[in-house]
Amino acid sequence: MGNTFGHLFRITTFGESHGGGVGVVIDGCPPRLEISAAEIQVELDRRRPGQSKITTPRKETDTCEIVSGVFQGKTLGTPIMIMVRNKDTRPQDYSEMQKTYRPSHADATYDAKYGIRNWQGGGRSSARETIGRVAAGAIAKKILRQATGVEVIGYVKRIKTLEGIVDSNTVTQDQVESNIVRCPDSECAQRMIELIEETGRSGDSVGGVVECVARHIPKGLGEPVFDKLEADLAKGVMSLPASKGFEIGSGFGGTVLTGSEHNDEFYTDETGAVRTVTNRSGGVQGGISNGETIIIRVAFKPTATIRKEQRTVTSTGEETILAAKGRHDPCVLPRAVPMVEAMVALVLCDHLLRHQGQCGTLKH
Amino acid sequence: MGNTFGHLFRITTFGESHGGGVGVVIDGCPPRLEISAAEIQVELDRRRPGQSKITTPRKETDTCEIVSGVFQGKTLGTPIMIMVRNKDTRPQDYSEMQKTYRPSHADATYDAKYGIRNWQGGGRSSARETIGRVAAGAIAKKILRQATGVEVIGYVKRIKTLEGIVDSNTVTQDQVESNIVRCPDSECAQRMIELIEETGRSGDSVGGVVECVARHIPKGLGEPVFDKLEADLAKGVMSLPASKGFEIGSGFGGTVLTGSEHNDEFYTDETGAVRTVTNRSGGVQGGISNGETIIIRVAFKPTATIRKEQRTVTSTGEETILAAKGRHDPCVLPRAVPMVEAMVALVLCDHLLRHQGQCGTLKH
Amino acid sequence: MGNTFGHLFRITTFGESHGGGVGVVIDGCPPRLEISAAEIQVELDRRRPGQSKITTPRKETDTCEIVSGVFQGKTLGTPIMIMVRNKDTRPQDYSEMQKTYRPSHADATYDAKYGIRNWQGGGRSSARETIGRVAAGAIAKKILRQATGVEVIGYVKRIKTLEGIVDSNTVTQDQVESNIVRCPDSECAQRMIELIEETGRSGDSVGGVVECVARHIPKGLGEPVFDKLEADLAKGVMSLPASKGFEIGSGFGGTVLTGSEHNDEFYTDETGAVRTVTNRSGGVQGGISNGETIIIRVAFKPTATIRKEQRTVTSTGEETILAAKGRHDPCVLPRAVPMVEAMVALVLCDHLLRHQGQCGTLKH
Amino acid sequence: MGNTFGHLFRITTFGESHGGGVGVVIDGCPPRLEISAAEIQVELDRRRPGQSKITTPRKETDTCEIVSGVFQGKTLGTPIMIMVRNKDTRPQDYSEMQKTYRPSHADATYDAKYGIRNWQGGGRSSARETIGRVAAGAIAKKILRQATGVEVIGYVKRIKTLEGIVDSNTVTQDQVESNIVRCPDSECAQRMIELIEETGRSGDSVGGVVECVARHIPKGLGEPVFDKLEADLAKGVMSLPASKGFEIGSGFGGTVLTGSEHNDEFYTDETGAVRTVTNRSGGVQGGISNGETIIIRVAFKPTATIRKEQRTVTSTGEETILAAKGRHDPCVLPRAVPMVEAMVALVLCDHLLRHQGQCGTLKH
Repeated sequence: MGNTFGHLFRITTFGESHGGGVGVVIDGCPPRLEISAAEIQVELDRRRPGQSKITTPRKETDTCEIVSGVFQGKTLGTPIMIMVRNKDTRPQDYSEMQKTYRPSHADATYDAKYGIRNWQGGGRSSARETIGRVAAGAIAKKILRQATGVEVIGYVKRIKTLEGIVDSNTVTQDQVESNIVRCPDSECAQRMIELIEETGRSGDSVGGVVECVARHIPKGLGEPVFDKLEADLAKGVMSLPASKGFEIGSGFGGTVLTGSEHNDEFYTDETGAVRTVTNRSGGVQGGISNGETIIIRVAFKPTATIRKEQRTVTSTGEETILAAKGRHDPCVLPRAVPMVEAMVALVLCDHLLRHQGQCGTLKH
Repeated sequence: MGNTFGHLFRITTFGESHGGGVGVVIDGCPPRLEISAAEIQVELDRRRPGQSKITTPRKETDTCEIVSGVFQGKTLGTPIMIMVRNKDTRPQDYSEMQKTYRPSHADATYDAKYGIRNWQGGGRSSARETIGRVAAGAIAKKILRQATGVEVIGYVKRIKTLEGIVDSNTVTQDQVESNIVRCPDSECAQRMIELIEETGRSGDSVGGVVECVARHIPKGLGEPVFDKLEADLAKGVMSLPASKGFEIGSGFGGTVLTGSEHNDEFYTDETGAVRTVTNRSGGVQGGISNGETIIIRVAFKPTATIRKEQRTVTSTGEETILAAKGRHDPCVLPRAVPMVEAMVALVLCDHLLRHQGQCGTLKH
Repeated sequence: MGNTFGHLFRITTFGESHGGGVGVVIDGCPPRLEISAAEIQVELDRRRPGQSKITTPRKETDTCEIVSGVFQGKTLGTPIMIMVRNKDTRPQDYSEMQKTYRPSHADATYDAKYGIRNWQGGGRSSARETIGRVAAGAIAKKILRQATGVEVIGYVKRIKTLEGIVDSNTVTQDQVESNIVRCPDSECAQRMIELIEETGRSGDSVGGVVECVARHIPKGLGEPVFDKLEADLAKGVMSLPASKGFEIGSGFGGTVLTGSEHNDEFYTDETGAVRTVTNRSGGVQGGISNGETIIIRVAFKPTATIRKEQRTVTSTGEETILAAKGRHDPCVLPRAVPMVEAMVALVLCDHLLRHQGQCGTLKH
Repeated sequence: MGNTFGHLFRITTFGESHGGGVGVVIDGCPPRLEISAAEIQVELDRRRPGQSKITTPRKETDTCEIVSGVFQGKTLGTPIMIMVRNKDTRPQDYSEMQKTYRPSHADATYDAKYGIRNWQGGGRSSARETIGRVAAGAIAKKILRQATGVEVIGYVKRIKTLEGIVDSNTVTQDQVESNIVRCPDSECAQRMIELIEETGRSGDSVGGVVECVARHIPKGLGEPVFDKLEADLAKGVMSLPASKGFEIGSGFGGTVLTGSEHNDEFYTDETGAVRTVTNRSGGVQGGISNGETIIIRVAFKPTATIRKEQRTVTSTGEETILAAKGRHDPCVLPRAVPMVEAMVALVLCDHLLRHQGQCGTLKH
């Protein structure tokens, strides 16, 4: 049951890296939404391998097909199935993984849990699994945009120790897409790209932090006490491959402030709306959105699969040395940006429908 | 539906800070487990107010009653309801909150979502709500202990900038409970206590970081792709009041390492078990436990309710100044320790049963 | 997890026949609904034992307490916990059941499943468990009534072979409550009462059929393909103790008609609304309400616990003879009426909120 | 969310009658189960159109593809996606349905709920949707068979007033498959076939009753109080197209007996197992399987789509006359048999895993 996410806007993903394909079933989508494969493809193209010199060269166009749930260009309210076939599969590249566990990868744990594992390209644990999430996220974004003009914008905030300067209130998707590392600070982006290339050449990998903002959020989203908005956001992004940490608003940094320094004081703006002077809460108070910009950060570890030699064991417990073959990203973050956006959009869209279900109307 | 957590070991909490009481219904508990109110009370006493000079002086014994699901000292397999009555309620202390929103608290967002709010002591957004979680966590801990000897131990790692030195592999519950701030580094603990007292006297508050380890975990817990163990752990602790960040293993710090520095190399130990040399993964790889110690950290912001004057608005939007009355903790962390442990235990116990359901057996 | 029902309007019940009490947590209730313990008590009084000469003489007032979720007479949108304490418990009456399995009762299966059983008064398998359902149903009914004037009216249609003549389009709650057997055909009701009394005196029991209608239902409730309205109604009532069959509309009887005889032809009424000439569909087509009256029937078997001698076995497998002591209903149907109504209201209310969540508006 | 069924063994179906295809995602399947497309195809062939002279002549081979979750012939424990492409679609046959509502069909209610509808061949409300259920059911059956030798056997018990004589304790799948109407009483089957053919020729349709037994069920399956085994069985089969009623064991017929006549007395058999002399309970007592044969019956109405003229309205409310074109079954029951079996197997398999999750072991 672990492959379903969301309650009212609910997605179920399927598929392995090598095999028939990957995809998603979206259940509970509001009817009569105009949606096309082309719109979804835009997001998939941001996620797909081979999109730039700093991503894996695996050649997949990741062309999606909407198999069900859309009729004459509009959603039916019935399950939307979207699928991408696997094409450029080279299982032979992974023959070594059949027996040898990659350190810090899922090979050993899948074997421990299931007693079986598709060892071709990581199988289900491959980031290729996120295609379904990104496709569903494209629809969630559109619903949010039509509801209250919500914008969900992710970007690379930091690669290793290179940290970009980004104004979360004004950053645009165009700025994010203006370079291949997806850091809107173009100068820093250049250095990030160089670092990733250099690291890749050396057979190693780097990690970093993706930041994501959601603006024009209606007040009232989130369901205490367990389905608080930050809890569901945390779960969403912590289910992405390679994520190791989550923060909202002030996050870990906020813990060195006192309450009087940290609290977001209220004021009434010119339209009479209650606003906060600062936004250390990150747009959520008590688990419920307060209408301010939601801002989160996600830590991604350096890619586990590297070409450098590492000490490891085989599936039968014999110690050995592994230097991974196959085609891998030296840094997952540029491609993780659309994944984070997708998870944020999925959480917000689900809570939008849930709030509408219980409380009937939305305050903006 | 946001008040239910877990799938097979599933809890539903209820209750407000002021009103008839608070509690929990636990559904799906394995039958024939010996459990007593006294065992649960031990955990509740670690959470209750008034337990030391650095917690709120609200006088609640938080005495629990097991209303159902236990017969002649053993669980029946049917829902276990555990309840604590509210006793030392002083709604008059909160009369100001009826109209005035506390900055960075849930007052404004509850009003925005529901159009109504129990303004006495925070209502449902009070940390008093966590009584049900801690009670259920006591049972989850016992199941885990009996299954594979799992120990779940939380402690205060940092208050503001005061960081304790703790060996996560050897720390004991006794060390944690040896001082009132629950930091096993006794020297640092002393300074933390002084800081909290001093801050409290000044009408302000401080935050910090709770670390929690779970040892002797069986391999194989966690269900990719959405119910990865770290995702459910993140959701669990991020649903606690005042939490702002989550890390597992190397967390945000790991993002400055390269893959070759970060990866946990495998080896085979003297018993033939596959182990990792380091544990930057924090006990989870690919969303599934690998048998190493699970280690997480949670950021808690400084308590929002403070006696210092703050700029705020009333529920009708008029700007005003608030200096909170009522009885509040100058620092939530000492009492957050059992809450974090409870959420970790609840997640692990649920996944233990889920794994048993799908895969039938456990590898340790 | 089997003790939770519904998705957006979600209830979790707890409690055994003998023990601390029984009750329910209702999560997801819309906020600001006016509700009082007195309103809920009205429904509980229709369900409680000892209400008439044809029900068990167990003396329980079943007085309910709203422990949480309601503030100053209105729902908060947070979990509503409602509890009834057990009072007139006589565990000694059941000492025989400790060792001896009652035929067609749940004694043996609870032991088989859980390896333990609260043998006092049936424990969790007692109809006393339905108190929580009826309390929650009272709130669901009020929501439905306020939404579109929905009326949910159940009544005894048949006891053994005595079948009442009832016009499902016009029957009123007052007619149902006008006699103790809850059959609106007063003449037939009298004969039913006599039959039940006579059967009870002989130490035996009888069953029958409860019919339930729901009028003024909005179009559009129900979620194909699994959560069709009739599927959720079937599940709801088939989870009641002693139920053995479910029908909607024409039910089993409709299977002897041809399609041309069975189909409900459409017409447009004077207001321009699309209606059906007949209602063999029972208000649901393709799993979705069509605005016509929902009509279902539930078969209840004769009470399993009887005073007559029966052949049975002990928990250790020895054959023996049992003549049950304790206080039992010779016929469950009069008290099953509010239970069926509650389940129907819970299903409809959940689907009302779900429809609002996905589709946003309601057509009536 | 209404397109997902089950908790641990959880299926999500997708697809419309006309469009890219139909299928299912199965999540939570135990790993290392040997399964092939050929095995699944056997069940799909029992369901497919055009299989005999008494079913719709639509030409679909319904050839399935296992897209994910199976590797080298064995289940991975990850989601299994199985898909069937639509081939012989003739949307032009349905052009009339674009505007005209078929009486007692889902056309009008889908429009009322969603404000949009795939009018080609019934869209999502088509029985073609059940392909995913039957494919998943094939896997569920295999798990059940391997666990405790469970056999799930459905058959046509009655067509209109023609009722077959079948011994539920001994009936075999071969007997069921020995004729095209799937009634093991071969003499009666002949008359049923003639009736269906005759009715079809006249442009009308007939309904009837499918009975289904499940033998060699372990004791202990089912989770009171809401997820009682009979409640989940009822929901499962009542979610099938055209079903109008459900019974377990004695069902509606049992309501005319007294308790002493109806109760299933216990005895201890030669192996020491506790058994019941009779089986009016239908294999379930108190919501939990007792190890006796589970026996249920499902009422299916006569097919709604008929060629005879009927009074109806258009989607804009104008009254009109409809004589349906397209290719339809004059009787759904022969093809409903594998559907009912699938739903029964899915419920049992889910409860098998759930029981294993909570209670750890199975008693047979």
